[in-house]
Amino acid sequence: MKQIENLLGFRESIKVVDATLRDGGLVNDFFFEDDFVKALYRTNVEAGVDYMEMGYRASKKVFDETKFGKWKFSTDDHIREIVGDNDTSLKLAIMADIGRHDKNDFDKKCNSPVDLVRVATYIHQMPDAIDMIEDAAAKGYETSCNIMAISNAQEKDIKVALDMLGQTPVDVIYIVDSFGSIYPEQMARIADLYMEFATKYNKKLGIHAHNNQQLAFANTIEACGDGVDWLDATYLSMGRGAGNCAMELLLGFLKNPKYELYPVFRFIENYMMELKKKGVTWGYDIPYLMTGLLNQHPRSAIKFIKDGREDLTEFYKELMD
Amino acid sequence: MKQIENLLGFRESIKVVDATLRDGGLVNDFFFEDDFVKALYRTNVEAGVDYMEMGYRASKKVFDETKFGKWKFSTDDHIREIVGDNDTSLKLAIMADIGRHDKNDFDKKCNSPVDLVRVATYIHQMPDAIDMIEDAAAKGYETSCNIMAISNAQEKDIKVALDMLGQTPVDVIYIVDSFGSIYPEQMARIADLYMEFATKYNKKLGIHAHNNQQLAFANTIEACGDGVDWLDATYLSMGRGAGNCAMELLLGFLKNPKYELYPVFRFIENYMMELKKKGVTWGYDIPYLMTGLLNQHPRSAIKFIKDGREDLTEFYKELMD
Repeated sequence: MKQIENLLGFRESIKVVDATLRDGGLVNDFFFEDDFVKALYRTNVEAGVDYMEMGYRASKKVFDETKFGKWKFSTDDHIREIVGDNDTSLKLAIMADIGRHDKNDFDKKCNSPVDLVRVATYIHQMPDAIDMIEDAAAKGYETSCNIMAISNAQEKDIKVALDMLGQTPVDVIYIVDSFGSIYPEQMARIADLYMEFATKYNKKLGIHAHNNQQLAFANTIEACGDGVDWLDATYLSMGRGAGNCAMELLLGFLKNPKYELYPVFRFIENYMMELKKKGVTWGYDIPYLMTGLLNQHPRSAIKFIKDGREDLTEFYKELMD
Repeated sequence: MKQIENLLGFRESIKVVDATLRDGGLVNDFFFEDDFVKALYRTNVEAGVDYMEMGYRASKKVFDETKFGKWKFSTDDHIREIVGDNDTSLKLAIMADIGRHDKNDFDKKCNSPVDLVRVATYIHQMPDAIDMIEDAAAKGYETSCNIMAISNAQEKDIKVALDMLGQTPVDVIYIVDSFGSIYPEQMARIADLYMEFATKYNKKLGIHAHNNQQLAFANTIEACGDGVDWLDATYLSMGRGAGNCAMELLLGFLKNPKYELYPVFRFIENYMMELKKKGVTWGYDIPYLMTGLLNQHPRSAIKFIKDGREDLTEFYKELMD
């Protein structure tokens, strides 16, 4: 907690990124109604959010288009149907998931409504990620890189990856707590490590947190206090498993007067609550706490909940095996 | 975050206090079945919890006994029905809420199963609180003091209160985030302030957090890292409004091998989930976020939810009026 004197001030360099369509899409296989997406877009504009992630641009060679909503494939045409020419201050992002993307799906920036290409990668895929970053940057996009599952990586490997990334055109390097296993005290250490390379190579840092231990918001503001500028959030925390840092918490915390809470609450009332009522399920729950605590991928917890199981203690024993 | 080097170690002086019956009782008017309370007691023993709060000892002159469950009045006899002679390492506590207590309801410690009397007070009631602390200490009890609603108090008044408390026999002084409005960064500052007086007068510090902004656990481990030893938690966060720091999160974080998670999960599976299914309602929700954010008592949010209202934006406007 490094910014005590600034609790009433604000930092111009902070960027809030709405990841609802993308991480939230992992909950409902990206089947969002156009009406929902348009309202989300308008809300982000009114709330002063800086970037809106319009989903993944997954390769149709890898995924069957009939099995997912369009925001898993998020073409420029899909996006234009929502935003037109996007004549607003809100910038648009899409995510390329390394190994499940096709760089040929990305036109030149001058032909696309997309501003930022977010590259998500495991640490062992770094050369492929760098290829994607260089391609996107050459086409004129801003770029960021999420190194996933770092809680299971060796610190030395992370340093090598950060050093490799530093030498690319990437604009933002993201700290990602994929399993929701990281405590704020550890987040501070990780932010320090990332900052070393960010300073050396003149990069920005970002944070993407998960809520398995009810720490997504706490870790996000911890990282923010440590100098991390790009902050991911989703409305009502909607995201895989336990979900993400809640937009309503984050904008309540940030003091920049450009951020507005009222449209956020209106969107939650009119749209997010509907999703919940329809039975779309995400958010903090004991099975996610267990996988977070044990530093494991949430897939087993997602299955436990999907299967309607309630035998928490049996599940905990299974995870410990 | 002051304990980076100790993340794998543990501090013997830490005490975990289960407040489920007391703060959770505010959710269901203290109508817990004996079977539930016995299971909770056994769970606390098996999980290595240090203290179990057996409810309030409210004055029957102030509250109508027919309108509440017995754990609002928690007599020595009530407690003995559950714990017998309490031949365990778990210590027992009750809370006296200043202005709604009667010190004559407290027998001498040698005649009571209670170990610790927790005195809850607003800052303007401090002389009455000190009278209660002195009476309980003279009777042979350990004593602690919760100064409530400090987020609305002047720092100077808090200092006066801490100085007064320092001169009493009280063993533990609690930092209480009654409205769930405090951020970890502020918690660190508050802990420093309290520590000044705790050091001067040789007192222990405690933390009692609320989850309005999903920060109850984060604030508790922040305070723990700042040297606060007594940590309140409740199973599945059960407590007024947005609830408290979750026992399952806290014991997952603490590294002392005496703490066991398995009985915690078993109790949640067998008892807490039943309460939820019966419609007992607590936990993080947007109306509680709103009162937390605006540093207000949660009573209006509790009413909003009890009334079945869903017009979040109207409610937000009402709170801002």
